[in-house]
Amino acid sequence: MAEEEFDVTPFDVEGTVDYDRLVEKFGTEEIDEELKQRFFELAGGENLYVKRDFVYSHRGLDKALDEFEDGEDFFLYTGIGPSGKMHIGHIISFYFTKWLQDRFDVNVYIQVTDDEKYWDRDVNDEEIDKYAEDNIREIAAVGFDPDKTFIFRNREYMGNMYDGIVKIAEKINNSQAQGVFGFEGSTSIGMNFWPAIQNIPTFFEDSRCVIPAAIDQDPYWRIQRDIAEKFGHKKTAAIHSKFIPALTGPEGKMSSSKPETAIMLDDGPEEVEKKIKKHAYSGGGDTLEEHREQGADLSVDTSFQWLRNLLLDDDERMREIAKKYSSGEMMTGEIKEILIEELNQFLEDHQGRKKNADDLVEKMMYEGDLAQDMWNRNIDLRLER
Amino acid sequence: MAEEEFDVTPFDVEGTVDYDRLVEKFGTEEIDEELKQRFFELAGGENLYVKRDFVYSHRGLDKALDEFEDGEDFFLYTGIGPSGKMHIGHIISFYFTKWLQDRFDVNVYIQVTDDEKYWDRDVNDEEIDKYAEDNIREIAAVGFDPDKTFIFRNREYMGNMYDGIVKIAEKINNSQAQGVFGFEGSTSIGMNFWPAIQNIPTFFEDSRCVIPAAIDQDPYWRIQRDIAEKFGHKKTAAIHSKFIPALTGPEGKMSSSKPETAIMLDDGPEEVEKKIKKHAYSGGGDTLEEHREQGADLSVDTSFQWLRNLLLDDDERMREIAKKYSSGEMMTGEIKEILIEELNQFLEDHQGRKKNADDLVEKMMYEGDLAQDMWNRNIDLRLER
Repeated sequence: MAEEEFDVTPFDVEGTVDYDRLVEKFGTEEIDEELKQRFFELAGGENLYVKRDFVYSHRGLDKALDEFEDGEDFFLYTGIGPSGKMHIGHIISFYFTKWLQDRFDVNVYIQVTDDEKYWDRDVNDEEIDKYAEDNIREIAAVGFDPDKTFIFRNREYMGNMYDGIVKIAEKINNSQAQGVFGFEGSTSIGMNFWPAIQNIPTFFEDSRCVIPAAIDQDPYWRIQRDIAEKFGHKKTAAIHSKFIPALTGPEGKMSSSKPETAIMLDDGPEEVEKKIKKHAYSGGGDTLEEHREQGADLSVDTSFQWLRNLLLDDDERMREIAKKYSSGEMMTGEIKEILIEELNQFLEDHQGRKKNADDLVEKMMYEGDLAQDMWNRNIDLRLER
Repeated sequence: MAEEEFDVTPFDVEGTVDYDRLVEKFGTEEIDEELKQRFFELAGGENLYVKRDFVYSHRGLDKALDEFEDGEDFFLYTGIGPSGKMHIGHIISFYFTKWLQDRFDVNVYIQVTDDEKYWDRDVNDEEIDKYAEDNIREIAAVGFDPDKTFIFRNREYMGNMYDGIVKIAEKINNSQAQGVFGFEGSTSIGMNFWPAIQNIPTFFEDSRCVIPAAIDQDPYWRIQRDIAEKFGHKKTAAIHSKFIPALTGPEGKMSSSKPETAIMLDDGPEEVEKKIKKHAYSGGGDTLEEHREQGADLSVDTSFQWLRNLLLDDDERMREIAKKYSSGEMMTGEIKEILIEELNQFLEDHQGRKKNADDLVEKMMYEGDLAQDMWNRNIDLRLER
C-alpha cells in the first residue's frame, strides 16, 4: 500500500464490531467529514478521539452546535457507577467530556449512581462509599473546570431533585422501562425506578443536554427524547464512541474484576509493563517468518487500537506505526513498548493530579460556583399543558 | 327483644360487608373480648371505636402490648394522600390514632403522600400543595401531642429518608409489588416504586410500628412483614377498622367529589342538616305504618351506623336509640336530628381547633421535639447478614 493512500481512520481497522450496523440499528447518525470539520472549527481545535473516528456517531450534535452558534450553551452530562475501581476504559469518556468543556466553556454534571449500583450489584454500603470516593477523585483528576462542574452522589443530592424525579416518573410506565432496560418481574422496584433518576440531570438546564457515551448506551435515552418536550425541554443530544477493546483482545470487555483485561488507573509502571507484555492481544504473525511476510492485523491488535483510539495524538507517528506494523516491519514487541510508554505517561500525569485532587473534589461537589448553585436549587419540572 | 338482651355490638348490625370473612381472607385476628379488656386496661380507659367493634381486627397488637408492658413503646404510623378536601371518613382514623397516643404516650408519624398522589391521580402541583396544606391543618386540629408527632411531606422529607428507601427498594421486586398492589405495564414507574416509600416510616424507630387503618389496607403491609426482619426490625402491627358507610348508604363509599355521599370537615351546620335530611340513607320503613310495624333495619341506616360507630359514646343512650328505632318507636327524622346535633358538635369543635392550628402545624412539621429530631436524622437501614 502506498504511503499516501494509508488512512488512519477506523473503518478499515474495526476489529470484530460492525459499527456501521450499530448506527443503523440505533438510528443514530455518523459524524461525517462535514460535521467533524464544523465541530473542530467551533471548538477551535481538533480532538484525538473524534479525529480517529473513535467518537464516530451522534444524535442531535448538529442541533447543539446550531444553538451554540446562536449563543446558547449546551451542557454536558455523564456519570459513574461506583461498584469498583476505575480502569482506562472508564476514564476516556471523562477526558473527552473535559475536552468538550474546555473548548465550549460549558457546564458538566456528573451523576454518581450510588443508588443504582446498590440495586444492580451485590455491593454493600462500605464498598459503595469507598468506590464512590475513589471514583470521584479519579474524575476530579481529569481536570474539569472546578467552577463549572458538579459531581453529585444521588443518595446525597436526592432531596434537591426529588420533585423533578416525581414528575418524570409519572411519565414513564413499567412497559416502557421494560422495553428500554429489559426489566422483569424479578427486577427490584428500585432498579425499575432508575430511568426517572437517570433522566433528571438532562433537565438541569433549559438548554440542550449533550451526553458523551458509548454507542450501546443510546437506547437508554429514548425515554428522555419521548418525554422532554412535554416538560418544555429539549431532547437530549448524544455523542457516541466505539468500544475500547479489552487488553486481551477485541472479543472481551475490560473488567475491573479481571485484572488481565484492563489497565487500572492506579496501576504502576511495572504493572503496566507486565500486563501489556503478558496479556495485550497481538494481531501479529504467529512466527517471525509469518509476521515478516503477512504483517499484523491492526484491527484486532490491542496495542495498535489503544494507541490509535486513545493515546497517540501525533498523526505522522501513528501513520508510520500503522504502516510498519501492518507490513511486518515492526514487531509486536516494539509496538507494545510504545504502548507501555504512552500509557505510563498518561497514567503518571493522571495519578499525579489525583494525588492533589482534594480541593478539586471539594469544589466540584460543594464549593465551586456551579456546585453552590446546585445545592441552593430545587430541581422541579412543569408539564406544558 | 327484651331490653337486657340488646347488645350494641356490630356483629348483628353489619350492613352489607361480611367483616368476619375479611378477617379470614386477610388472615388477621379479631380483637376478642379478652384482648379488648387488656387493651383498655393498659390504656387506662375505653375507646368508642374499639368498644363498638368498629375497630375490630388486628395483626400483632398483642405483641405490641406485650412489649409495652415490658417497657418498650410502640410507635404509630398513618398517612394522608393530599388529593382533595377531607371528610368525616378520613379524620376518624386520626382521632383513633390520637387516642392511642394520649393513652400510651407514644410517637406518631404522619406521611403526607404528595408524591404518590401525583402518580395516582390527575392532580397538579397547585392542587397538591393546596390540599396538603389544608389536610395537614385538619390533622393538626385533631390534637396530637405537638412534641411527639411528626407530619412530613414526602417530597420535602425525601432527602432524609432516601438512604433507607434505597435499601427497602432493593428487597422488593416488580412481581411482589404487582402481587400486592396490582401494578401493571401501564402503571407509572413512580407508582411502582411506591411500596418502598410507603414502608420507610415503619423503620423510623427500632420498636414496633403500629398502623391504624381500615382492614382492606392490611395486604399493603405484607411486604413490610416479609422484609422487616432482614433489617433487624420488627414486623409492623396493625389495628383494623371497618368501613364507614357513605351518607347515601352502605353500598357506596364516601367521596369528596360526590358531596351527597360525605360530610366534609368544613361543612357548616346548615349544610350538615341539609345533607343529612336529604341524603342520609334510612333503614326505616317506607311508610309510617310499615315503620311502626317492622321498625328500622339498623344495619343499613347511615344515621344509626355513624352514631354508633363514630360519635355517640354514651352506651345507655345508644342502646335506647337502637331499641326505639329498631322497634319502630323512633322515626328516621328523629334519629337524623340526633345525628345532626352530634355531627355539628363534633365539627364545631374540630373546626375551632383547625382555625387555631398554625402553631401546631409548625410544631408537628418542623419545630416540635420529635420534628426537630427527625429533621436532624438520616434514615438508613442495614441488612443483618
